[in-house]
Amino acid sequence: MIPLGGLGEFGMNCMALRWQDDIIVIDAGLMFPEEELLGVDIVVPDISYLTENRDKVKAILLTHGHEDHIGGLPWILSELNVPVYGTEFTLALVEGKLEEHRLLDDADLNEMIPGRRITLGPFSVMPIRVTHSLVDCVALAIHTPVGVVLHTGDFKVDLSPPDGKPFDLHAFAELGKQGVLALLQDSTNVDRRGYTPSEKAVRPRLDEIFGQAKKKLFFSCFSSSIHRIRLAMELAHNHGRKVAIIGRSLDNTTEIAQDLGYLDLPQGLVINPGQIKDTPANKLCIMISGTQGEPMSALSRAAVNNHKFAHIDAGDTVLMSSRVIPGNEKSIYRVIDHLERRDANVIYDDGASGLIHVSGHGSQEELRLMINLVRPKFFIPVHGDYRHLKRHVELAGSMGVVEKAILLEDGDVLELDKNSATKNGKVTVGRVCIDSGGAAADVVEDLVIRDRKHLSEDGIVLPIIAINKRTGKPENAPEIVMRGMAIDDPEMIAEARQVVQRTLDGSSGEEKADYGVIKEKIRTDLKRYIQKSTSRRPLIMPVILEI
Amino acid sequence: MIPLGGLGEFGMNCMALRWQDDIIVIDAGLMFPEEELLGVDIVVPDISYLTENRDKVKAILLTHGHEDHIGGLPWILSELNVPVYGTEFTLALVEGKLEEHRLLDDADLNEMIPGRRITLGPFSVMPIRVTHSLVDCVALAIHTPVGVVLHTGDFKVDLSPPDGKPFDLHAFAELGKQGVLALLQDSTNVDRRGYTPSEKAVRPRLDEIFGQAKKKLFFSCFSSSIHRIRLAMELAHNHGRKVAIIGRSLDNTTEIAQDLGYLDLPQGLVINPGQIKDTPANKLCIMISGTQGEPMSALSRAAVNNHKFAHIDAGDTVLMSSRVIPGNEKSIYRVIDHLERRDANVIYDDGASGLIHVSGHGSQEELRLMINLVRPKFFIPVHGDYRHLKRHVELAGSMGVVEKAILLEDGDVLELDKNSATKNGKVTVGRVCIDSGGAAADVVEDLVIRDRKHLSEDGIVLPIIAINKRTGKPENAPEIVMRGMAIDDPEMIAEARQVVQRTLDGSSGEEKADYGVIKEKIRTDLKRYIQKSTSRRPLIMPVILEI
Repeated sequence: MIPLGGLGEFGMNCMALRWQDDIIVIDAGLMFPEEELLGVDIVVPDISYLTENRDKVKAILLTHGHEDHIGGLPWILSELNVPVYGTEFTLALVEGKLEEHRLLDDADLNEMIPGRRITLGPFSVMPIRVTHSLVDCVALAIHTPVGVVLHTGDFKVDLSPPDGKPFDLHAFAELGKQGVLALLQDSTNVDRRGYTPSEKAVRPRLDEIFGQAKKKLFFSCFSSSIHRIRLAMELAHNHGRKVAIIGRSLDNTTEIAQDLGYLDLPQGLVINPGQIKDTPANKLCIMISGTQGEPMSALSRAAVNNHKFAHIDAGDTVLMSSRVIPGNEKSIYRVIDHLERRDANVIYDDGASGLIHVSGHGSQEELRLMINLVRPKFFIPVHGDYRHLKRHVELAGSMGVVEKAILLEDGDVLELDKNSATKNGKVTVGRVCIDSGGAAADVVEDLVIRDRKHLSEDGIVLPIIAINKRTGKPENAPEIVMRGMAIDDPEMIAEARQVVQRTLDGSSGEEKADYGVIKEKIRTDLKRYIQKSTSRRPLIMPVILEI
Repeated sequence: MIPLGGLGEFGMNCMALRWQDDIIVIDAGLMFPEEELLGVDIVVPDISYLTENRDKVKAILLTHGHEDHIGGLPWILSELNVPVYGTEFTLALVEGKLEEHRLLDDADLNEMIPGRRITLGPFSVMPIRVTHSLVDCVALAIHTPVGVVLHTGDFKVDLSPPDGKPFDLHAFAELGKQGVLALLQDSTNVDRRGYTPSEKAVRPRLDEIFGQAKKKLFFSCFSSSIHRIRLAMELAHNHGRKVAIIGRSLDNTTEIAQDLGYLDLPQGLVINPGQIKDTPANKLCIMISGTQGEPMSALSRAAVNNHKFAHIDAGDTVLMSSRVIPGNEKSIYRVIDHLERRDANVIYDDGASGLIHVSGHGSQEELRLMINLVRPKFFIPVHGDYRHLKRHVELAGSMGVVEKAILLEDGDVLELDKNSATKNGKVTVGRVCIDSGGAAADVVEDLVIRDRKHLSEDGIVLPIIAINKRTGKPENAPEIVMRGMAIDDPEMIAEARQVVQRTLDGSSGEEKADYGVIKEKIRTDLKRYIQKSTSRRPLIMPVILEI
């Protein structure tokens, strides 16, 4: 067992299982970069171990469709085109992603059906239905020559799932009875006591908010939260509001959910964004992407009055049905402040707004429940920072049902046989930074996957803008510093300065005051210009000097 | 009434009151920069309004000694040396700060005593004792020709303050009876329902933790939290542990607290950091600064095993008796992960560790209590982002005792007379960025106050380091990009590269993997080198490329 990502960090989940000359991989996720990695869009696991053993890799199995489980697929498949297995909904999300990267035609996608076994060389894999914030999620019971390795994927024990597809407790109990060699369990909420509430628990408070909204109601949630989207649409219908959907990812997932029968929408409920202006404010529910204050998201742009269709007026309600992900506070609160200045009524997860969001991950009692049902010989926590893995080892170790709880980190090799689990050596792991082009700009572009090594060969460009805090206006013309671009063409630098100047001229005062937004705009525009004129893709890091 | 800072942001609190040709200023705070402002140490309010009216400014009055209320003083006094008024403890903190900046000799510091009036031209100021996380805090009742303006400062209504100095409810009730024109109230916790618990409420859980610690106990809290420090020392004494104090700011405040009688320490309780190694682990309590994961703090350095006296061993307990300030999550969790890897038992405010910290700011019921007691004609919230001010206006407006609640922002001029409050125009406000030299390095240096304008005249230096994520080692030699340094001396650039290289060579693998730490080390060393060799102080922004 060789974890390649997600054991020691949140995101980029990826786990390899090997038996002699056969390797299967569970999940292929991405993570979003830390603030220190300016200029990078996404981060994926280093898969040297897989490429060095490329003839042995038999398949990638996906537990569900969240970005931290499938987002690294385009990168991995472009290096190593092996068959991919996932449930219907997961594959639908994967298809869109591969299509964007022009990898779909060559991909070998295979549907997994909960309860139906798949044989992959020495491995026999049984997908088991679990509940989570997303639909169509599975745990994987992998029968190997030395015993069953059970990977929970992401889960919570939701006993009243909104889609009526129950958590398959029986399958886990049955496995526990037969004997499980190793349990790999999601550590995300190991710090939380008790049980995570059901997804249904948010309904009463959301219903109340829909009932009380006087003018337009903006509803924002993670674009993959199909349960939540369905609930919001149902409530909109009940309260006589039409629904307009704004934001590419939201558009995409709702379309997939509709195609696959997860959303059954009444005729005429959904209108085009263009129809918003012709609909009375109190008859509108606008579903809008951008719960985390992403600078170029629809909600962020609407908040500074820079969106074509979404206009926030005084008295509108903005409901952010999501959590504040640690690290995103500043950008989220910035968006909220902009919304409040437009006199919107902003409802977000501040601890005093009632139950407007629930987690998709099981809390301590659900983790214990699973361990108790499964009674594994060995326990290995997955998905978490070091401290989460450590606490999860302690939690499992103190229950009296596990023979050994093992703290494994990315790159550790764990050798398992019927009776023992031994750490034996290390493989290469790490993070690969990817610059995905214009994805953040909410526009489908020709995305090219590149790692940072190529980028650093392509050089670095630092546009430096001095903004006068008093006037909010840039002082002097923008400066451009380039390094390692091989070209040192003064004319190009002059043109690049003009590009930045045009971006500045075309931005509102509010945008210029919001450094997150203005930096992202400069980065996007400059990237486009440099690619066009040189077909290079340098790392672009805007620097704002406040003077 | 002219707010110059803190109304629309957290930090840099500063409020001017003017009657004809007399101006008094309440508080002179700083704020810590947002992540976008790399290379900046602190941010202070733009005081153009005061310098343009320099002959009118009569005094600066300080409500208490927190950085967001006094941290901007050196900067303001260096521009405008007016008399300063504060309570005994507040002035003691101010003295240290002014001494560092060599401004103490020329400063005119005057003690304020709660209950004793001060007359400043047309203003007569009565300081009223309030409770907060810090000691010796006051609200200010300012009698003006048109009525009383009451500024609460920071407060909570702690009915069992650990220092036995009670919140003066009677004084507020009396003012309410006589009539208050305007109440300016702290908005920090306007989002929290109910009451904030007393500072004493943390004692039981801390006592339990002190009792259960098996080996060394590291105790970390905000260095200004005198109540908390006193409690920790008392508990250490009760549990037979000696106390070592590590960290300059902690050293400084405990010394002041001792001098002023806030800490009465038993003989022999405190030992020197050098004595740690000769004391049994289970007889040690090490008070250490760095609750927010500040890269160069003692705790951060101890976490990566890079502190002379503080060594974290397996089984040690690290108690972080403080909150996770939004925006600091990543650096805090990074430190915690390092500590966990050393197998320390880390206890922090994760919602599951019991009551190990309480806020110093009043919650909704305390805000209502104050408004009810004071019954002001006009209500103006202070200290908060826009959304906090807005909610506070709503809260006050819905109580039926305030004639008008007014949302004022930095720079708004509010004209008050006996019967009316009218917004009338704007003055210049803004943020001034300051590079304070080596303060972050926990060493007293010759600190020079400079604003960013001077910095941008001094140019910008970008050391660029490519770190190989797999090996954790830097690839190639560091690159140095300089702009606007006027000097373009290749020899100097070569030397600067060597300086960075030496910093890298002298750092451990763990430090190099922690970009926050390594960037701060590079910045500090490079700054020192450039100052010495050119006596310039450019803006230094390290860039890490992960490859």
